[in-house]
Amino acid sequence: MSIQPLGDRVLVQEIEVKEVSVGGIILPDSAKEKPQEAKVIALGTGGIDANGKEITFHVAEGDTVIVSKYGGTEVKADGQEYKILNQNDILAIVK
Amino acid sequence: MSIQPLGDRVLVQEIEVKEVSVGGIILPDSAKEKPQEAKVIALGTGGIDANGKEITFHVAEGDTVIVSKYGGTEVKADGQEYKILNQNDILAIVK
Amino acid sequence: MSIQPLGDRVLVQEIEVKEVSVGGIILPDSAKEKPQEAKVIALGTGGIDANGKEITFHVAEGDTVIVSKYGGTEVKADGQEYKILNQNDILAIVK
Amino acid sequence: MSIQPLGDRVLVQEIEVKEVSVGGIILPDSAKEKPQEAKVIALGTGGIDANGKEITFHVAEGDTVIVSKYGGTEVKADGQEYKILNQNDILAIVK
Amino acid sequence: MSIQPLGDRVLVQEIEVKEVSVGGIILPDSAKEKPQEAKVIALGTGGIDANGKEITFHVAEGDTVIVSKYGGTEVKADGQEYKILNQNDILAIVK
Amino acid sequence: MSIQPLGDRVLVQEIEVKEVSVGGIILPDSAKEKPQEAKVIALGTGGIDANGKEITFHVAEGDTVIVSKYGGTEVKADGQEYKILNQNDILAIVK
Amino acid sequence: MSIQPLGDRVLVQEIEVKEVSVGGIILPDSAKEKPQEAKVIALGTGGIDANGKEITFHVAEGDTVIVSKYGGTEVKADGQEYKILNQNDILAIVK
Repeated sequence: MSIQPLGDRVLVQEIEVKEVSVGGIILPDSAKEKPQEAKVIALGTGGIDANGKEITFHVAEGDTVIVSKYGGTEVKADGQEYKILNQNDILAIVK
Repeated sequence: MSIQPLGDRVLVQEIEVKEVSVGGIILPDSAKEKPQEAKVIALGTGGIDANGKEITFHVAEGDTVIVSKYGGTEVKADGQEYKILNQNDILAIVK
Repeated sequence: MSIQPLGDRVLVQEIEVKEVSVGGIILPDSAKEKPQEAKVIALGTGGIDANGKEITFHVAEGDTVIVSKYGGTEVKADGQEYKILNQNDILAIVK
Repeated sequence: MSIQPLGDRVLVQEIEVKEVSVGGIILPDSAKEKPQEAKVIALGTGGIDANGKEITFHVAEGDTVIVSKYGGTEVKADGQEYKILNQNDILAIVK
Repeated sequence: MSIQPLGDRVLVQEIEVKEVSVGGIILPDSAKEKPQEAKVIALGTGGIDANGKEITFHVAEGDTVIVSKYGGTEVKADGQEYKILNQNDILAIVK
Repeated sequence: MSIQPLGDRVLVQEIEVKEVSVGGIILPDSAKEKPQEAKVIALGTGGIDANGKEITFHVAEGDTVIVSKYGGTEVKADGQEYKILNQNDILAIVK
Repeated sequence: MSIQPLGDRVLVQEIEVKEVSVGGIILPDSAKEKPQEAKVIALGTGGIDANGKEITFHVAEGDTVIVSKYGGTEVKADGQEYKILNQNDILAIVK
């Protein structure tokens, strides 16, 4: 099963950042900050946006990106969690 | 009876995702997450949108799509439940 | 007395959907869902909309339509209830 | 004293709809629905609207119109109550 | 000291409407409705508005106008109270 | 240290209006109305605004202006308090 | 690891302003005002903005700027805290 985002949307999968607390103890999930890093899985179909302009993507499949914490919609496929978000909710590329 | 959506609207029918809980027991409706997958039943009449641009559809009848949880209006016809939503509330096509 | 809507507005009259409960008892009004089906009674005067574009109507007098539950303004004329709504609050035509 | 509305505004005076309750008793003011019918008293000065388009009026002095219940500003002149509203708050002409 | 409003703003001074209650007693300030009538004291500098269009004034110094109750900013100069408001908050001219 | 505002922003410093109460007693700060008068310290860099139009300034360094009470951002430099605000938050020039 | 902001975004790092209270005691973090000064670390990729206009940067790497307190998104990289914000949330350059 594959998910093809429409328009200027991008499918990403969040990257779990391993964090260790001061005392070296692995923190349970709820104690960690929500991850902001994600890997780009698939680009949208592109085309013309709502203002009549050609959509161009500034990220590529496989890029590690920083995404806005609250944007996008979470979807599940094959037991994995993904996020579909507008390209504008991608803030930066991490190199 | 058939429903013909107007403009850039799309008529979809949600797909009930069969889910089994950890212990193998079928969950009653309220315990499941609201389904996000839907099948496209009918495309709108198209024409010119509010910005004067020709409407084009990026989905086709029969496509399985992921729809925004909160968008659209629920309608009933012939005892079945449908949803009329703007094409923009369709996030992705599932292949 | 007749009501002539202005611009892209449409005058509709809601259609009472006869519903029978599980046990065959006619439900009193408050127990029924608000009807979403309506008959188109009169089209607006058309002309130029706020964006300078010619208004075109995608519905015709006599059409059965599905209207947005919360849109429009209710008016009374000759003891009957009507609704004046923007064409955009008409979601679909029922055939 | 006369009131000349500016731009696309229209001066109207609400028409008190005489209503009789089921038992033939005249209802006191607070028990009646707020009237939606009004007579057009004066058209605005017209000119160019905020989008640079020439203002045209689709109603004329003396027309009976249906106005949006909540739009407009109430003003008093010579002991009478009027309402100044944008033409867009006039929903329909009653003929 | 004089106040020169910028752009499409207008400086007005509210006119106290003398009102007498039913029994002929002058009402204290808090019992009166907020005045909506004002005299135009000075027009703005004009120029180009935010949409790139030349500003034109439809009122003149000395005009008695009806102003929106809630628009504008109150300012004091030489112990007198004025109001600076956008021309769009002037609803009508009283003649 | 100097502060150079960007774009159509203007750096101003509020002018403390000396006020004396009815009994001739100097009022402590919290009892006075927030000052609305300010002196223009520096104009922005100008350039092209968000709508693609050349920015022009209608105020000059040294002008005494009336500013919107709630607009702008307070900044400190060299122990003095300034305010950076959009030119549109300047209502009038005091002459 | 480096962070490349997208579009008109700018990566900044806040500058801790050393403040000493009246009595010469260093204030703990929570007692200080949130810093508004920041150093520009990296400019965005530029390109075409949402209105179809070429993005130009009015700040340069290394500039000390005053940023809007509430704009932007905080990110961590290599144990340091940064902020990604739209260029429009930069109010002024400090020279």
